[in-house]
Amino acid sequence: MKPISRQTVDEVLQRLDIVDIGRTTIRQCVNVSHELEWISGEKFVHLEFGIPGMNACKVGLDAQKEALDNGAASVYPPSCGIHELKENGSRFIKAFVGVEISPEGIVPTVGSMQGCYNLLLECIQMNPEKDTVVYLNPGFPSHYVQAKVLGIKTRMFDLYDFRGDKFREKLEEVFRDGCVSAIVYSNPNNPSWVCLTEDELKSLGELCTKYDVIALEDMAYMCMDFRKDLSMPFLPPFQPTVARYTDNCVLMISASKIFSYAGERIAMVAISDKLYKREYLALRERYGIGRFGDNFSLTYLYVNSSSCSHSAQYAFAEMLGSAADGKYDFVGQMREYGRRAGKAKEIFLRHGFYIVYDKDLGEDVSDGFFFTIGYDGLTGSQLLLNLLRCGICAITLVATRSTREGIRVCVSLLNSEKDFSDLDERLGSFERLMMDENR
Amino acid sequence: MKPISRQTVDEVLQRLDIVDIGRTTIRQCVNVSHELEWISGEKFVHLEFGIPGMNACKVGLDAQKEALDNGAASVYPPSCGIHELKENGSRFIKAFVGVEISPEGIVPTVGSMQGCYNLLLECIQMNPEKDTVVYLNPGFPSHYVQAKVLGIKTRMFDLYDFRGDKFREKLEEVFRDGCVSAIVYSNPNNPSWVCLTEDELKSLGELCTKYDVIALEDMAYMCMDFRKDLSMPFLPPFQPTVARYTDNCVLMISASKIFSYAGERIAMVAISDKLYKREYLALRERYGIGRFGDNFSLTYLYVNSSSCSHSAQYAFAEMLGSAADGKYDFVGQMREYGRRAGKAKEIFLRHGFYIVYDKDLGEDVSDGFFFTIGYDGLTGSQLLLNLLRCGICAITLVATRSTREGIRVCVSLLNSEKDFSDLDERLGSFERLMMDENR
Repeated sequence: MKPISRQTVDEVLQRLDIVDIGRTTIRQCVNVSHELEWISGEKFVHLEFGIPGMNACKVGLDAQKEALDNGAASVYPPSCGIHELKENGSRFIKAFVGVEISPEGIVPTVGSMQGCYNLLLECIQMNPEKDTVVYLNPGFPSHYVQAKVLGIKTRMFDLYDFRGDKFREKLEEVFRDGCVSAIVYSNPNNPSWVCLTEDELKSLGELCTKYDVIALEDMAYMCMDFRKDLSMPFLPPFQPTVARYTDNCVLMISASKIFSYAGERIAMVAISDKLYKREYLALRERYGIGRFGDNFSLTYLYVNSSSCSHSAQYAFAEMLGSAADGKYDFVGQMREYGRRAGKAKEIFLRHGFYIVYDKDLGEDVSDGFFFTIGYDGLTGSQLLLNLLRCGICAITLVATRSTREGIRVCVSLLNSEKDFSDLDERLGSFERLMMDENR
Repeated sequence: MKPISRQTVDEVLQRLDIVDIGRTTIRQCVNVSHELEWISGEKFVHLEFGIPGMNACKVGLDAQKEALDNGAASVYPPSCGIHELKENGSRFIKAFVGVEISPEGIVPTVGSMQGCYNLLLECIQMNPEKDTVVYLNPGFPSHYVQAKVLGIKTRMFDLYDFRGDKFREKLEEVFRDGCVSAIVYSNPNNPSWVCLTEDELKSLGELCTKYDVIALEDMAYMCMDFRKDLSMPFLPPFQPTVARYTDNCVLMISASKIFSYAGERIAMVAISDKLYKREYLALRERYGIGRFGDNFSLTYLYVNSSSCSHSAQYAFAEMLGSAADGKYDFVGQMREYGRRAGKAKEIFLRHGFYIVYDKDLGEDVSDGFFFTIGYDGLTGSQLLLNLLRCGICAITLVATRSTREGIRVCVSLLNSEKDFSDLDERLGSFERLMMDENR
């Protein structure tokens, strides 16, 4: 396609009340691209959404429809989750993460979004002197907004600047004053796809124990570090986790990506056995219930939404069970994202781009759901503006609290060969545009 | 059944760490009854749960299964809700409430629980000087816990003491200092089944406008005041609402009771057109978005759960549309609860009980989902303890913030003739027990 004029883009931004494209939400970016699609008459290449690009897992669909036929729709689900989900969730974690978490600690949530939201709130309320949450950047944009909505103090640093031994030192620095209640991160990391190693997680776990910090580990993309084969249930290697090194942890596992089940808003938190039973005086005084795990489901989740879709709980239970039984190979399905990432990276690099977060300690970062792209001499905002002119939509790294300049690329919607050839052709336009402007 | 001994009940309470049965949650009451069922070998009559006692609406089930077949499960729903739900929600409200709310203002939530939770939070954050919420008592126990979780200041009074003209005076008294941001109530009232009249709602609406208070009107039991026929779409009489008298209002309409769809956790808020578009400086500063309605879905709901079950949105849309088209008579279905209430009340009265909240201004309260029962000389806790001994479970009015002594009775699980004859027989035991103890 022919590049859209700078003026047209500026007019659209003005009309949509956007001052800096680099600081918009994903939703606003999408609105800009929709306007430009309409004006140019060309469909954009969409790299902004972190949404599944595959069909929902059929095992889940069948179970959900059966649950609807069996009367699940008229009955409130228990706020701690249905029995089957608790059992299979525990078994799935044993199979793919290699740690033991009792069924009691498995509680379904309306996506990990709701899990994280309520865990943050509980962590902040259970210990009056611990009023701060730490984020490992870059990260999932909405996690930062959660802290803003809940009025929680935050600390953060860019993980990329503190890998290996430096990670432990930096963590100790931010934990030392005793104000930190919890730390939030996703592994693999959204958007950089950097993966914390078992060594780094060991440091984190030990320091969480030492400073009484709860690790909230978002496993949205679990087992998608395709450099290792994490697909065999109950066999190593397992998905790395902090849960091997501390009891102060909660895992968040969503069906959205691993089972392409984002629409039904179903996930689970897995609270370590020891944390589940831990008694907090401040919670007992406030709610008449003292234990961490009981409060999570009976207080926080209950008044937030009275649990989540009953039929989707049956779907999730069945998918987790089927994966643990080795009948449904979710890792094999997800490898498709790795293939798409490899192909997309090759195209970007060929057109003069570079990978922003390129290394994972010594190795190249793995090919997965996301990667990060920069272009010499352009800020993230400038890069995004020019990509929009060429029919490509994405979000900048600013929204992910990165200190680096560039954009986040999600490969999930690169479904067909045509998507890749469109990407190639448009990055060609971009390259010519850059040459013209620098002439 | 033979009454269970006082000592056995006391032992169970002690084992479950319950000091005062009158101050327990529904969940804890259920646990007590389960223990006693096990000990006595007799199934209890369950009057505690406010859950549907009918099958889920088939129109919804069919639409939900179709949505799953059509790929809804893999795609994130838009955070403002799917188009069909917004359109049909608006039409349904026009049909049964008789007011105009644009589709833009219809936003699905994970039950009205999530709607109310996030509306409370938004109301408290949008106006720094308004930090207080008013509740009309008695009420839904979880609404009070929401304020506790969110750290919101509350004011409340017992509606029954301030009906008619006194209602306006009392409201003016609690609104006058300008600290009140919102008022929460359900109409018909849970648990008293008292219904605010159009006159009272007019007073409320005028004062909400005068003092800039947002009315959060929970319509969980809409059209269930069976003294009038509210079943004809687009024809009066309509469900009474404050929306006729102020723009400062949000309706909360859940599929849980009206379509017996509680399991799927689907409801909608309906924000008045004027409030939707209203700009709040404090919100713009905090989130970069100023309008009330945009913040509700793009900020609050989005980071809380990224919307709600995609397939359930299709189910709800279809049920709302079908009701508005006059094809599905949800009011007719719900009349069954009125029949059960009439029958249950007769049994209670015959055994010497009285209705606690008995009058609705001049009239008797309507027969519906809930009613309230007392027994001369017994506090709510004493009454509940003795009913438990006779195989009947309920909750006391203390949990509903009532100042009166008694219990809440939900008729939804009185499904069969046997349930009624069991109730009759056990209230007979109760009566004999009371006579023995007073001898």
